[in-house]
Amino acid sequence: MGRVTERRRVIRIRGESVSTRPDTLVAEEPLEIRLGGRPLAITMRTPGDDFALAAGFLVSEGVLGSAEELANIVYCAGATAEGVNTYNVVDVQLAPGVPVPDITLERNVYTTSSCGLCGKASLEAVRTTARWPIADTPPVRVAPALLSALPGRLRAAQRVFDRTGGLHAAGLFSAEGELLDLREDVGRHNAVDKLIGRALRSGSLPLSRTILLVSGRASFELAQKAVMAGIPVLAAVSAPSSLAVDLAAESGLTLVGFLRGDSMNVYAGEQRVVLRTAAAGH
Amino acid sequence: MGRVTERRRVIRIRGESVSTRPDTLVAEEPLEIRLGGRPLAITMRTPGDDFALAAGFLVSEGVLGSAEELANIVYCAGATAEGVNTYNVVDVQLAPGVPVPDITLERNVYTTSSCGLCGKASLEAVRTTARWPIADTPPVRVAPALLSALPGRLRAAQRVFDRTGGLHAAGLFSAEGELLDLREDVGRHNAVDKLIGRALRSGSLPLSRTILLVSGRASFELAQKAVMAGIPVLAAVSAPSSLAVDLAAESGLTLVGFLRGDSMNVYAGEQRVVLRTAAAGH
Repeated sequence: MGRVTERRRVIRIRGESVSTRPDTLVAEEPLEIRLGGRPLAITMRTPGDDFALAAGFLVSEGVLGSAEELANIVYCAGATAEGVNTYNVVDVQLAPGVPVPDITLERNVYTTSSCGLCGKASLEAVRTTARWPIADTPPVRVAPALLSALPGRLRAAQRVFDRTGGLHAAGLFSAEGELLDLREDVGRHNAVDKLIGRALRSGSLPLSRTILLVSGRASFELAQKAVMAGIPVLAAVSAPSSLAVDLAAESGLTLVGFLRGDSMNVYAGEQRVVLRTAAAGH
Repeated sequence: MGRVTERRRVIRIRGESVSTRPDTLVAEEPLEIRLGGRPLAITMRTPGDDFALAAGFLVSEGVLGSAEELANIVYCAGATAEGVNTYNVVDVQLAPGVPVPDITLERNVYTTSSCGLCGKASLEAVRTTARWPIADTPPVRVAPALLSALPGRLRAAQRVFDRTGGLHAAGLFSAEGELLDLREDVGRHNAVDKLIGRALRSGSLPLSRTILLVSGRASFELAQKAVMAGIPVLAAVSAPSSLAVDLAAESGLTLVGFLRGDSMNVYAGEQRVVLRTAAAGH
């Protein structure tokens, strides 16, 4: 546990200078997520917050919607033939009465759609599994200046990144720009799942009136996780994909990309962004 | 086909200036890879080079090792209930006699290892499925100055990135630093699979005496793909993970990280890097 970083010997080359020294690396280990004892998915993740990661993954997949639906999460003590606990296998037990999904292949929800595997099918799958609409009452309204301040706050709060450079960060902010939680992981989908899983376990889903900031690009998968958690605003430092924008537009998610300095692009859900044109009277 | 980018309307905010204009986004669509008609995996990818992506994925998983083992790859015309071809489902048919793997869950190769799910099991899985050792005859020897020149060449050759900012790039270089192939994708593992799949189909596996450059971090998964394709040098612009370094050290892969300007870190396989210390006579 706590193996967030590991040390390895490295040869540093800086122009003509060559030196050997220990270096701090971000730890990466496989995690198998089981549901009622049955293997469901394997993800390569940074150890830590594993129960939150498993819970958040199941929120993203539409299996879990509240802490009450979750009976227990345990590390599998008998995960190996020798009964050794590697702390890399977790088993999620659902509360009685919660339906166990029929998932035979990761994301096979797409393949069973009657309209075939395509972007529309992916959007449809999210729509049919979402537990709640993105509904914030009173509606979130964020000023560009507030959004512009978030990446700096995320970086200031990141503990591991500066040592390894190998982590993706995901930050959850209030509508007023206060940092509520921050998770880091070698996989950015894991960082978001850990945020969402912690919210589920503390009973704060759906995450109404929050802003999710990710340090990289905004893929369909990250937009899906925001929608499934009820998060109204997703902001990314880099570019979104076409399907992320389509999902945001269809789901009512506000999607901001290229959030750098006082610049940003709003791709969907602009009703939540306070827009003032330079010309007075607009 | 050819849907590498798509256009969407975007609201651009630049300080006090707000404008609405069309924007070019990287396209993202799901791709289902079937093996002999049986669903094997789904990946979110940028359309294009889909057959190469499927082939490269199967090389990475140890199913394919040469073009002769591949009978055919087709788009599934009857992928939907209405028989519409979405060009998002490909079926790979292996040549007669090539064993079909028993893959019931993505990457379940880890879970069947007798030592349980852990980093060591992940390394072991690569070792047992690798088709060839990383053996380059004559051995590759690369100077730091040659490595330093590669990111600039990759950027210069990238066609889509400058328009969308949303793509990961993977470049395959000769040991002399010549760009052999370049693939871009919304997922960096896809970009590498496309490179490797194209090499398989052109009969050039194992990729001895080549350098693989990736635009982001070096994860275990990317190191695994390099090893499975027989690539001797993996260079990344950003940080590697601990497990990527462990795999490189165990497999004889040269792993270079933080390749920026004339600086870099060598994490494993330094026998292929021409090291001169600043002090003469060392």
